[in-house]
Amino acid sequence: MKIIIVGATGTIGKVVAAELGKRHEIIGVSAHNSPVKVDITSAASIAAMFKAVGPFDALVSASGGGYWGSFEKMTEEDFYLGIKSKMMGQINLVLEGRKYIRPNGSFTLTTGILAEDPVKDSCNLAVVNAAVNAFAVSAAMELGNGVRINAVSPGVVEDSREKFGPIFPGHVPVSMERVVAGFVKSVEGMVTGQVIKVY
Amino acid sequence: MKIIIVGATGTIGKVVAAELGKRHEIIGVSAHNSPVKVDITSAASIAAMFKAVGPFDALVSASGGGYWGSFEKMTEEDFYLGIKSKMMGQINLVLEGRKYIRPNGSFTLTTGILAEDPVKDSCNLAVVNAAVNAFAVSAAMELGNGVRINAVSPGVVEDSREKFGPIFPGHVPVSMERVVAGFVKSVEGMVTGQVIKVY
Repeated sequence: MKIIIVGATGTIGKVVAAELGKRHEIIGVSAHNSPVKVDITSAASIAAMFKAVGPFDALVSASGGGYWGSFEKMTEEDFYLGIKSKMMGQINLVLEGRKYIRPNGSFTLTTGILAEDPVKDSCNLAVVNAAVNAFAVSAAMELGNGVRINAVSPGVVEDSREKFGPIFPGHVPVSMERVVAGFVKSVEGMVTGQVIKVY
Repeated sequence: MKIIIVGATGTIGKVVAAELGKRHEIIGVSAHNSPVKVDITSAASIAAMFKAVGPFDALVSASGGGYWGSFEKMTEEDFYLGIKSKMMGQINLVLEGRKYIRPNGSFTLTTGILAEDPVKDSCNLAVVNAAVNAFAVSAAMELGNGVRINAVSPGVVEDSREKFGPIFPGHVPVSMERVVAGFVKSVEGMVTGQVIKVY
């Protein structure tokens, strides 16, 4: 398969790219460090990326961020950081990518445990993760042409334990092996409309 | 209690206003048919509404819409209809309203069964409903001052059976009495951070 990995240089993206790369052709795209670049907060940049890459069989997005910080001071503008990036960035990858995806292809988006188990300062990311989960469930029914879509929702990954452990009190880190397996299940398996929870 | 009901003239809002009005002071606001008006897609309009109404004990939002239609033709712009209205409209009611709400007050937002049980053409509303559910769960931890927040998520209401029944195949309509009870539980009860599912 020809697989686009968006966020191919990130903590999760690079490991997923390495695993899927054993068996498939990988087109890694990221904001800065790839031959084909993409800024997922821009629909025009997403359109240009797909035009450059052409038809493909699977897309994995391990990309997108949001506002992390004080709830008390959070403004509408802060909230739109996550809407434009992790939420609409990933949704736009599907809305535009469906024009190029081959029949029986698949989209795999990334969310996270905050969708249902938020922590302090995570409100914006909790919301956009839940939004993308619901998008995967709902879009799966309507994509057509045998195209599948799932969201992988990881907990705190062991590789990020030092960075995220203290701000996710009581969250039990999950192995990167399990996270990668979630992506493999979505791309190489048959499931669709699933939130693949890795926690 | 002094209770603001946003969307006080809608199918659900008017019944909730009638029930809560038996025991509380109701300030009904809507886009057109109320002394104090509000356009929830505008943060400035929301700010003006709260300024006009002043301190309050509870806010019930039974307002907000989104894009309903062809998934195949759905654009980013269509998707923002729901983001700006039912999602950020309701979230902005909380972000701005927390400046005016009295200690131990409550916010009650409205979502719907599509968040987890979508139907054809409902993708945008499925997503924004799920987003608002996650907001209620997450914001409840951080509001402070004893302020509570919940989302009421109704199924198809019997009163709308004629309109929605055919486009929600296999959904079992719920009584308006049960829906109103969900709002009463949120406003007069003690729960917080809950998605009160009425289906």
